[in-house]
Amino acid sequence: MLESNRNIQSLELLFKPRNVVIYRVSKAVDFFVKGFKRQGFNLEKLYLISPKEDSFLGLKCYKTFDEIPVETIDLVILSIRRDLLIQTLQEVLSKKKIHFIHIFTAGTGEFDDIGMEIERNLKKILEDYSNTRSIGPNCMGIYSPQGKTAYYSSFPVEPGNIGLIFQSGDLHSKMIKFGSRRYNLCFSIGVSIGNCVDIQISEILSYLNEDDNTDVICVYFEGISPFHKNEGKKLLEVLRKIKKPVLFMRGGKTERGQTAVLSHTGSMATKKNIWNAIYKQTPIIEVPSSLDDLIDIVYLFSNYFNRYKKLKKKIEYPINKRSLVILWSGGFGILATDMLIELGLEVPHFKGETLKKLNEIYPIRVGSLSNPLDLPFVTYQKELVEVTKAAIDENISLVLLETDAWKNIEGERFKGYYKNLLEIKDYVENQNKIFVIILHQYPSESRKIFSDMLLKDNFLVYPSLEAAAKSFLKLYEYGEEVRNSKKS
Amino acid sequence: MLESNRNIQSLELLFKPRNVVIYRVSKAVDFFVKGFKRQGFNLEKLYLISPKEDSFLGLKCYKTFDEIPVETIDLVILSIRRDLLIQTLQEVLSKKKIHFIHIFTAGTGEFDDIGMEIERNLKKILEDYSNTRSIGPNCMGIYSPQGKTAYYSSFPVEPGNIGLIFQSGDLHSKMIKFGSRRYNLCFSIGVSIGNCVDIQISEILSYLNEDDNTDVICVYFEGISPFHKNEGKKLLEVLRKIKKPVLFMRGGKTERGQTAVLSHTGSMATKKNIWNAIYKQTPIIEVPSSLDDLIDIVYLFSNYFNRYKKLKKKIEYPINKRSLVILWSGGFGILATDMLIELGLEVPHFKGETLKKLNEIYPIRVGSLSNPLDLPFVTYQKELVEVTKAAIDENISLVLLETDAWKNIEGERFKGYYKNLLEIKDYVENQNKIFVIILHQYPSESRKIFSDMLLKDNFLVYPSLEAAAKSFLKLYEYGEEVRNSKKS
Repeated sequence: MLESNRNIQSLELLFKPRNVVIYRVSKAVDFFVKGFKRQGFNLEKLYLISPKEDSFLGLKCYKTFDEIPVETIDLVILSIRRDLLIQTLQEVLSKKKIHFIHIFTAGTGEFDDIGMEIERNLKKILEDYSNTRSIGPNCMGIYSPQGKTAYYSSFPVEPGNIGLIFQSGDLHSKMIKFGSRRYNLCFSIGVSIGNCVDIQISEILSYLNEDDNTDVICVYFEGISPFHKNEGKKLLEVLRKIKKPVLFMRGGKTERGQTAVLSHTGSMATKKNIWNAIYKQTPIIEVPSSLDDLIDIVYLFSNYFNRYKKLKKKIEYPINKRSLVILWSGGFGILATDMLIELGLEVPHFKGETLKKLNEIYPIRVGSLSNPLDLPFVTYQKELVEVTKAAIDENISLVLLETDAWKNIEGERFKGYYKNLLEIKDYVENQNKIFVIILHQYPSESRKIFSDMLLKDNFLVYPSLEAAAKSFLKLYEYGEEVRNSKKS
Repeated sequence: MLESNRNIQSLELLFKPRNVVIYRVSKAVDFFVKGFKRQGFNLEKLYLISPKEDSFLGLKCYKTFDEIPVETIDLVILSIRRDLLIQTLQEVLSKKKIHFIHIFTAGTGEFDDIGMEIERNLKKILEDYSNTRSIGPNCMGIYSPQGKTAYYSSFPVEPGNIGLIFQSGDLHSKMIKFGSRRYNLCFSIGVSIGNCVDIQISEILSYLNEDDNTDVICVYFEGISPFHKNEGKKLLEVLRKIKKPVLFMRGGKTERGQTAVLSHTGSMATKKNIWNAIYKQTPIIEVPSSLDDLIDIVYLFSNYFNRYKKLKKKIEYPINKRSLVILWSGGFGILATDMLIELGLEVPHFKGETLKKLNEIYPIRVGSLSNPLDLPFVTYQKELVEVTKAAIDENISLVLLETDAWKNIEGERFKGYYKNLLEIKDYVENQNKIFVIILHQYPSESRKIFSDMLLKDNFLVYPSLEAAAKSFLKLYEYGEEVRNSKKS
């Protein structure tokens, strides 16, 4: 097998290349150059090749690979038509010492028999160059803000704690773009891995498992390369021992979806019962077939890990599913109760002594203190905090506060309200609990301003109760697994 | 019973009052005045009462009810503390001829025993004035753009085809606000109905069933007033014979949710098995416990009815669940396939002759024509339309096109793309089929501009495939019911 034949070197230089060659640049792939520029990659170490142009986006172009003035290259991005791929690869490999090649070229194994033949040849050539590793073909490649590399200029420059391994370049890009725009998500390393002719998902997973900057890993998986039938076993081994939460989204869950996988990465489909066994035997977290859901869920994990990191505290997962809902709307309160209960959360009903206590703290004329706390008019007053704290003390793990946007954020009322929110957040988080603000979304200037303000202050802000509750349940379930594995 | 004792007069004047008295105005309820102003209600016929002020928001105030210079009043909005309610009501009723009273006052039957006693007295008084009908207490009242009345200035002025009956004022308001902001939804009549001491949901339903402007009705239901135990039976009768789609959202579906209902409208809870029978015996459409879902679903119904109305054609519902997905992303295509199949749609796999035909129309190098149509680079070319038309001809009912926002909407490429979208829309809709554009949302100027453009041209634009698919299924299922009831 390819992977056993060769010396599996560290992937470090793939994510932090000291120099990069793009072969060849053109308007169609200008995003690569723009991505490197945006991340602040050392442009003196970015070598562009174009047989036609002297310069591209302000950077010098070399006519051929020979002209590149270095002998050792950490990363080559190969962007050429599939019918030129094999010949070019041979030429490139014979001329320089290359650590990593990203094969961008699509239309190979996933497309037709000719493409499959190309992959077969690709694999043969790579076997002859055991010091050169490659990702792809049919992939967008690497996003590594620490290494100052990215393939789109829209990706955030700030690094974060989320690692990505995606068998779809477009999903990978959208994950980064939507995630950073919606929730300010930041990423440690993102890999659009494609058809996996050489480097396998299991290898990247092993790397991210050891990477100190990565706290949570998202995988979009379609299947195993026909050249690496052993990868299934390896993947299972790695996943069994993985130390970090892995959010696993599988493309081709349905039989009909599997036919679509064939024309995408050309991967071998895997059966449902095998997957059920994998989900049981490993701590990985299954995610529904929705990128939005994945973004919602990883947001909570990422935020939760960041919080503990910052406090230099050992992470503690929620110990129960008891939730408290705070809002100002009877109707929403009832829908919230129904929805949370149906999803599997608990919404303890405050009565008897508890209700009496809450009533003593803040007697109300309308609304309700029974959970949901339906608190009309109580927003900027101190009582909001007091009654909320007392309610939280009823062994609550998740506090959900539904809010509207404020038009006047300069006024004393808003300032009082915001102070209350900060105080509740501190109180909740000091007890290893979770505080989420629900701000329903539609295009609106005041919503955008308020949302940005909350995100900047590290509030967890979800657009719907459902998204927050589903994400919480995944974190809770993962915590349960961690507790159980420690016991056994 | 109250309702049998009295002459049930038309509700016309509730929705199109010729004059209105607000008793009493204050800063706390200035939204009423602002709402009427915004809708363009004849301000000479809007009488404000305030014992303290001479004028309010530029309008003259009367000190007492006696001072109002008319003898017959179509609508009185009663906004006073609960302990003054009974006395004030008696006074008001004894002085003028009043058609309708909206009792805004909260803290009655839903709140405590004193409040329940107030409702009991309320009912007694209203029985003595059989020509006066009332909605409430504990409700926001009426939104009727045709009658130029609204209780919030944020509600759209343009009337539409959606009728609302909500037992939660806040949900009612959010439905209108979010719906109009997200999808440009417009409404015929909206009723925040509250605790239903006099006017019942079944009465408003009967009215909307005959109202030519209303095509689809949304109900948020919590329960039946303890003073109207017969209402359950009446509601069932009305729903059995209803001619229009009714999207029915029930608060208090779970046992835990029912305890919350008690403190909201004080309604009697109804059992799950009764509801299952009602859903079976009537054509009403059950909606999950989520306002977002309700807004998504009614958007499709409203748009669909508007389309047929405009064409003066008889409505035809989708005859199958065959969907076509068009995008430019293998990964999204696979997730889309899995998700649609799991939701219960069909995603016919194009192969053999069909695939050959599509390939002849537009041979592609990468991507896929097998459904999802994964069409890289094909956006502004004519081939997008041709290949899409050929695929639609495979007996497709729902066409879902996933798009990104465009930054440059002045360029030729965008213009070509937009022309294609319009052409596909015409082609699909001329065949009584549904064309939906999926534009994922996050705060972004270009997304807002593109989205507004699409909505203005009457495209159906959803933020996620899931929302569109779930809404389609509700329309399909309703169509099935209509077809079955015609057969039997």
